[in-house]
Amino acid sequence: MVLEKEQEQYDRLQTMRHSAAHVMAEAVQALFPGAKFAIGPAIADGFYYDFELPRPLVPDDLPLITDKMREIIARDLTFTRWEAAREEAKELFADQPYKLELIDEIPDEKVSLYQQGKFTDLCRGPHVTSSGEIKAFKLLSIAGAYWRGDEHRPMLQRIYGVAFETQQSLEEYLQRLEEAARRDHRKLGKELDLFSIHEEAGAGLVCWHPKGAVVRRVIEDFWKQEHIKRGYDIIYTPHIAKADLWKTSGHWEFYRDYLYGPMEVEGEEYLLKPMNCLYHILIYKTKLRSYRELPLRWAELGTVYRYERSGVLHGLSRVRGFTQDDAHIFCRFAQLEDEVADVLELALFMIDTFGFADYQVKLSTRPEKYAGTEKMWQEATDTLSRALERKNCAFEIDPGEGVFYGPKIDIKFKDAVGRAWQGPTIQVDFNLPQRFDVTYIAEDGKEQSVAMIHRTVLGSMERFLASLIEHYGGAFPVWLAPVQVIVIPVADRHLKYADKLARKLKEAGIRVEVADQSATMNHKIRQAQLEKVPYMLIIGDREEAARTISVRGRGGEQQNNISCSDFKKVISRVIADRETGLRLAT
Amino acid sequence: MVLEKEQEQYDRLQTMRHSAAHVMAEAVQALFPGAKFAIGPAIADGFYYDFELPRPLVPDDLPLITDKMREIIARDLTFTRWEAAREEAKELFADQPYKLELIDEIPDEKVSLYQQGKFTDLCRGPHVTSSGEIKAFKLLSIAGAYWRGDEHRPMLQRIYGVAFETQQSLEEYLQRLEEAARRDHRKLGKELDLFSIHEEAGAGLVCWHPKGAVVRRVIEDFWKQEHIKRGYDIIYTPHIAKADLWKTSGHWEFYRDYLYGPMEVEGEEYLLKPMNCLYHILIYKTKLRSYRELPLRWAELGTVYRYERSGVLHGLSRVRGFTQDDAHIFCRFAQLEDEVADVLELALFMIDTFGFADYQVKLSTRPEKYAGTEKMWQEATDTLSRALERKNCAFEIDPGEGVFYGPKIDIKFKDAVGRAWQGPTIQVDFNLPQRFDVTYIAEDGKEQSVAMIHRTVLGSMERFLASLIEHYGGAFPVWLAPVQVIVIPVADRHLKYADKLARKLKEAGIRVEVADQSATMNHKIRQAQLEKVPYMLIIGDREEAARTISVRGRGGEQQNNISCSDFKKVISRVIADRETGLRLAT
Repeated sequence: MVLEKEQEQYDRLQTMRHSAAHVMAEAVQALFPGAKFAIGPAIADGFYYDFELPRPLVPDDLPLITDKMREIIARDLTFTRWEAAREEAKELFADQPYKLELIDEIPDEKVSLYQQGKFTDLCRGPHVTSSGEIKAFKLLSIAGAYWRGDEHRPMLQRIYGVAFETQQSLEEYLQRLEEAARRDHRKLGKELDLFSIHEEAGAGLVCWHPKGAVVRRVIEDFWKQEHIKRGYDIIYTPHIAKADLWKTSGHWEFYRDYLYGPMEVEGEEYLLKPMNCLYHILIYKTKLRSYRELPLRWAELGTVYRYERSGVLHGLSRVRGFTQDDAHIFCRFAQLEDEVADVLELALFMIDTFGFADYQVKLSTRPEKYAGTEKMWQEATDTLSRALERKNCAFEIDPGEGVFYGPKIDIKFKDAVGRAWQGPTIQVDFNLPQRFDVTYIAEDGKEQSVAMIHRTVLGSMERFLASLIEHYGGAFPVWLAPVQVIVIPVADRHLKYADKLARKLKEAGIRVEVADQSATMNHKIRQAQLEKVPYMLIIGDREEAARTISVRGRGGEQQNNISCSDFKKVISRVIADRETGLRLAT
Repeated sequence: MVLEKEQEQYDRLQTMRHSAAHVMAEAVQALFPGAKFAIGPAIADGFYYDFELPRPLVPDDLPLITDKMREIIARDLTFTRWEAAREEAKELFADQPYKLELIDEIPDEKVSLYQQGKFTDLCRGPHVTSSGEIKAFKLLSIAGAYWRGDEHRPMLQRIYGVAFETQQSLEEYLQRLEEAARRDHRKLGKELDLFSIHEEAGAGLVCWHPKGAVVRRVIEDFWKQEHIKRGYDIIYTPHIAKADLWKTSGHWEFYRDYLYGPMEVEGEEYLLKPMNCLYHILIYKTKLRSYRELPLRWAELGTVYRYERSGVLHGLSRVRGFTQDDAHIFCRFAQLEDEVADVLELALFMIDTFGFADYQVKLSTRPEKYAGTEKMWQEATDTLSRALERKNCAFEIDPGEGVFYGPKIDIKFKDAVGRAWQGPTIQVDFNLPQRFDVTYIAEDGKEQSVAMIHRTVLGSMERFLASLIEHYGGAFPVWLAPVQVIVIPVADRHLKYADKLARKLKEAGIRVEVADQSATMNHKIRQAQLEKVPYMLIIGDREEAARTISVRGRGGEQQNNISCSDFKKVISRVIADRETGLRLAT
């Protein structure tokens, strides 16, 4: 019931946003005679409309259009729906080529129209009763957009807006937007010198700079350590393979558009690997495997390449080359539930360790086209839900959303500003073991098909770093911070003591720098804050005389008169326990 | 003088080997009337001759040919040199098409011939005075070889032989050969389940199995730790880049034949990277760099792909995809000597840590075609030799053998059977900084060109593993061993104590397994020895009662009545100190 109510509320909001698009179109019609109208749908949080206008829009146009919209809203114009015969509609839109194109594609003899004030649109609706129902809105931006998204068709001008039921909701949304922009990993990635992407080398290909690479390496080391502890073996496999292998697997057929290559070597075609599984299968098949060896859990930080249109690439979160924290588990079907439960435990442990408090779990079931038998799907799906229940994991069913080769569990975690990130995924595969004849010798000496699980717990190193940057606004937990401590000598005469301190901390494995450039202490502190270094150790006459330090946290918190060994104890604990907060003392 | 004498001795040996090839040809002529002769040179350790014969050779032919050779040697036939006019020679070799082809390519009007007994060959010599001087020889194998190495020309039959000055040297050589075959990393790699290469995925592409991957991971972790300690930053870069980038760098022009690709993405050509340097330069150039930041030392375990003909591929030691332990140092020219000295120290430390006692160092100087100025070369070459002298590193000059872009130091280390492996390399580069305009702002505010060093210390993970396997015959030092300890319960009733012991060791980070399959103790010990596990812990009634263990080393050494904590102490020390030998007790 709760869910139904939520859905109702959401539908009402989207209707209002759609109507706001029409109101914006009416305002544009009034301000730009001769405007041609394309489409104007509701989208997440708001709406847009695409226009062909006599001149390019400039930011100053937005307040004018906003004022005009407010007028229309104040007049509380009724939204009227009516139907017209196709030919009648074509006459009505005689000077609107985009509408004419749309009408031609409607199969029915009658088309649906909506009118408010002087503006009539081709539209299925629904809409609000009258324009007065449009509450809080704001026009955000102007963008270019090809008609129908096709680069060979005309470039139109799009205006984006957002709309909410109350002014307060709108303002909260705008604040979140601002906060998100502040946390944008592309912006912070540059400011904190974490990574870069070079158009001259290729879009969507990430270079990890020293500081970003520290974060990645610490995560990878932790990841490997946890996997080994949980009975995984780490393996390495090549980045290319003959195209024939991807034909046998079915990837060539199903994912052709995402594959990099082919390239020719000695008369044979090679592809960059879009996933690691085939190589894991090849290794599995180098020996006859006994039931005694199973489960085999093989993990790889495997870099894969998948083509994505340059238009959809986005910083680290949508790239063309990425390193999956991949693993494949080969087991008996009877072991499936235990294995899935263990993966779930690992996945939730990871989400928790990295400081994400909230997550959603979905179990996707059999789609219309599928490999394996209905019975296999039913059993595997049941197994997945039993494993979820065993781990007290609340989940929703996503009916028909499984991949063609098997049911799956997807976990999305939420960041500090409420956005959901694609995280762990656990997929059962009925397809590859069959295509590659992946078997083991059972206790009775007979050959049996293995159960195969694909899984990642972080997703990819690239996207996961994006989520971390945005979740923490670049202020990483101490154990992940590229530089954990900066020692700031108040004057040059304190440099020697500062160096000695730094050496001591370095010996304890702490990443420490000394601010030895000639600048004021305040400048050095500001610099360290900009770089979001967790701890600043201020060293002046008093500290040097007393052989102590003053510790300052990146949030401004400060504690004086701490002995170096006490500080070393505190920070070592904070790092070892992977604490997400900052502590100055025990 | 010593060197001259060695050279003389070597030349005499090669002359004798060359003459042995002629004697073999005479024997083949006698046994296979109608044989056609191609070429028969001396090679390292021996000789070969390529023939076109009326039927395929079989191994049983070798003793027959050997007997015939012995006859010829016993008759002590004189080797006579004479010269013939080109046309005369062509008549002489009228039924020898390969010789005719060779004669046609000799520019001189007279050609040199050698005759012993009934066999005359087109040959520059020199040769022994008479066949009796050929001392100890052995025919080793038969192989196919294309005429002139060209797969479009006829396939000939090649017989390989070795020859030495004494029977004893020959026998020692054959023993070394046998030992090398026993240590062959391709054979051991399969037996120890370390890696595999799959024709269906692509020749020269290595899959690291769990056990091989442990060795690699331990090496990589150690490598990273040592680099960080020595002021390097670790970075990560993509495996592909636009072809244009490789055109700017000159790789397209100079290394076209080795490049993988192109493959097309959105109308642009991409290549797999054959080296990591360009991406390091792109990262360098994301900021204006000050002299204060230099030196920057950026290290990457970067997997690169280079095309090699399938015929030359060899296990892990010659592959198409390999992970370089790469680094680039960007520094001021004044810092070059210190940097090179530090790299040398690291390189020699690595060679020593991995247990290689012997190595050779070469300094390669300016070739005929070169980038940069003569003065730059002279200074850089002087800098390299000063750095070598500072590190007390004896070296030879390899005149003109530098790469076109700068002088370099190459270090080869010798394995336990005396073979040399390509190891560390340190190269100065005058080319890329210029082509990509890689600069820094000097103390005086002016822009200066950086000095750039390319270096690896292990070479590649693949080739280095090959050298380790062959050096240790698969019996890795404890710190590298995939499984360090195997606990062997004498009977099933000791399994519980065995598991407890294993758990304790595992908690200390030791890689331990329990031999829990139902088999006799002797079988388990044999199995552990085959797998070259360093330590076996034998657990029987006596050990369980006394809460002790009996430790057995993989070489057969044994010690009883050791407490578990004492053993843990010993092995932890052996691992932490990266000892190459085995100790059972302190």
